[in-house]
Amino acid sequence: MTPISQLGEFGLIERLTQDLKPMQPSTLTGVGDDCAVIAGTEGEQTLVTTDLLMEGIHFDLVYTPLKHLGYKAVMVNLSDIYAMNATPRQITVSVAVGKRFTVEHMDELYAGIRMACEQHEVDLVGGDTTTSLTGLAISITAIGTAAPDQIVRRSGAKDTDLLCVSGNLGAAYMGLQLLEREKMVFNSRPAKEVEAAQPDFSGREYLLERILKPEARRDIVKSLNEAGIRPTAMIDISDGLSSEALHICKASGVGCRIYEEHIPLDYQTASTAEEFNMNVTTCALNGGEDYELLFTVPLTEYERVKELADIRIIGHITRAELGACLITRDGQEFPLKAQGWNPLTAEKEA
Amino acid sequence: MTPISQLGEFGLIERLTQDLKPMQPSTLTGVGDDCAVIAGTEGEQTLVTTDLLMEGIHFDLVYTPLKHLGYKAVMVNLSDIYAMNATPRQITVSVAVGKRFTVEHMDELYAGIRMACEQHEVDLVGGDTTTSLTGLAISITAIGTAAPDQIVRRSGAKDTDLLCVSGNLGAAYMGLQLLEREKMVFNSRPAKEVEAAQPDFSGREYLLERILKPEARRDIVKSLNEAGIRPTAMIDISDGLSSEALHICKASGVGCRIYEEHIPLDYQTASTAEEFNMNVTTCALNGGEDYELLFTVPLTEYERVKELADIRIIGHITRAELGACLITRDGQEFPLKAQGWNPLTAEKEA
Repeated sequence: MTPISQLGEFGLIERLTQDLKPMQPSTLTGVGDDCAVIAGTEGEQTLVTTDLLMEGIHFDLVYTPLKHLGYKAVMVNLSDIYAMNATPRQITVSVAVGKRFTVEHMDELYAGIRMACEQHEVDLVGGDTTTSLTGLAISITAIGTAAPDQIVRRSGAKDTDLLCVSGNLGAAYMGLQLLEREKMVFNSRPAKEVEAAQPDFSGREYLLERILKPEARRDIVKSLNEAGIRPTAMIDISDGLSSEALHICKASGVGCRIYEEHIPLDYQTASTAEEFNMNVTTCALNGGEDYELLFTVPLTEYERVKELADIRIIGHITRAELGACLITRDGQEFPLKAQGWNPLTAEKEA
Repeated sequence: MTPISQLGEFGLIERLTQDLKPMQPSTLTGVGDDCAVIAGTEGEQTLVTTDLLMEGIHFDLVYTPLKHLGYKAVMVNLSDIYAMNATPRQITVSVAVGKRFTVEHMDELYAGIRMACEQHEVDLVGGDTTTSLTGLAISITAIGTAAPDQIVRRSGAKDTDLLCVSGNLGAAYMGLQLLEREKMVFNSRPAKEVEAAQPDFSGREYLLERILKPEARRDIVKSLNEAGIRPTAMIDISDGLSSEALHICKASGVGCRIYEEHIPLDYQTASTAEEFNMNVTTCALNGGEDYELLFTVPLTEYERVKELADIRIIGHITRAELGACLITRDGQEFPLKAQGWNPLTAEKEA
């Protein structure tokens, strides 16, 4: 293990970025000057999004491999770019590390960051590498482009539009429950037993993948574009379906109806929720971290949208006066609440 | 004092950004969607820079008012944009706060951020607001524009070019020494005396301002442009003159000579260094946080550059084989070393 102080800031940056090869023609200057320089593309607009991930709040290194963490930190930003129907082009990555981190730890983290960049053809063009007194902090900014008439905001949903969601919901949240339970079991065992203890996640691998290595849904944006379907509003699901549906309703000045029976759930999510004595619909509504896309399309697109793979119509947009509600399987109406994961109100559980 | 949990993340963001009015015509969508949207300007390139500031590493809240901290966090990023001879247009701000922070603390921090934005006509277009288990973390990304032939990189310095610096050096470092000394004195006093203790900084206000509220040198970029002088290479001085001169030399494949007698120093810097028994040239070379501009111009610009206010010619560029050296007042040559402030090698003093 190599202490980071042996390389220093500039040595570390050089090591982590030495063989970066730009994939985007617009990347003119990457790491190594005061700023990155990006060429303008005629007729395109620039999209910018940023996320700050803090150890102990957004991730727990007890069960999060650094490579996965790097991968995920990039994905959550790319997801925001796709949610505007745009194409990510560049990212900057800032990392602050405590003294317990070695050069090899940074290699792992950046291996995940670079894998995410390669898979989405995004260039790492800059950042900052520094020290933290305590935990790890990762701040990523993603830059994308789109033609002006291609950009989809949260604010375009209209009465009677269909409300659609990609993939399935609640899986990341159930994956987190599994990991947290294993951590508790592990911590409560006598030291002797711990060595032999191997968590048993067999049959639950999908849930772990959803929390540890989420995928930004470029494929969904692509298939909508190929089908010539333009969403009227779109958002990615980071805080749970409820919270995101309310964002669309507020920004668009509309209401909505979501049908419980149409919310897409994976079998593992449902069976694990049952095991944990949790209501699986609540997990889907408030779980968060799914990084699926929630979007609206005009009612006239019904026939075409329902043919698309991995997209489900879960409800529709209404006039604002009707509010935002969930219709349960037995026909009852409940107002949606933004109970999703909120780091500024949530008390951290032990 | 209002606990942040009372507002929640979205309530807090709304409060902090409610009356933002875009000043840049290119800001199409600011805070409130998955991404900010920025219009492309024909023939302009985009510049991106980012910094991550961590409590206890980059700032000490014992003597750093939050408003100043917000102001400075923006300035250090704008300084990078100016150092490319470009114009800053937008910033994103991500903040992670521990539980001891209240809504009023955030108001203070953002007051400084907004003041910096207003003075430089920069729009705050997005960010992330979250929790930290311990200290405060601030991550800012700045976006600027420049015509392609206007951008000045670190790599353009040529043999015989003049090496110039704006303002004066070492003042921020001496300001930091004053604050650290006061903190030690304060901490070592009995509780009774502390109440009455008022630090005496009279006559040293300039040094405190340089460390607590630095100014990005837009004025220097402007006066160079107005004079029609295009630097061949430029960098901002964040880690000390030595370190930055070495960056230019490495990127440009050249050497340099810096003359000790020409390094600009403020009177307060010199007298405080003497009081602290420090070599003032060492402070200027390695002190850092000056946020002045270091740049090179062709020798043919000598007459015109020396007429410009607040710019000093401190040396010249040489062939690479001659290395990067300081020429002392008594004519000795010492190789420059990058001993500047480096958070990844520095051990934090108690």
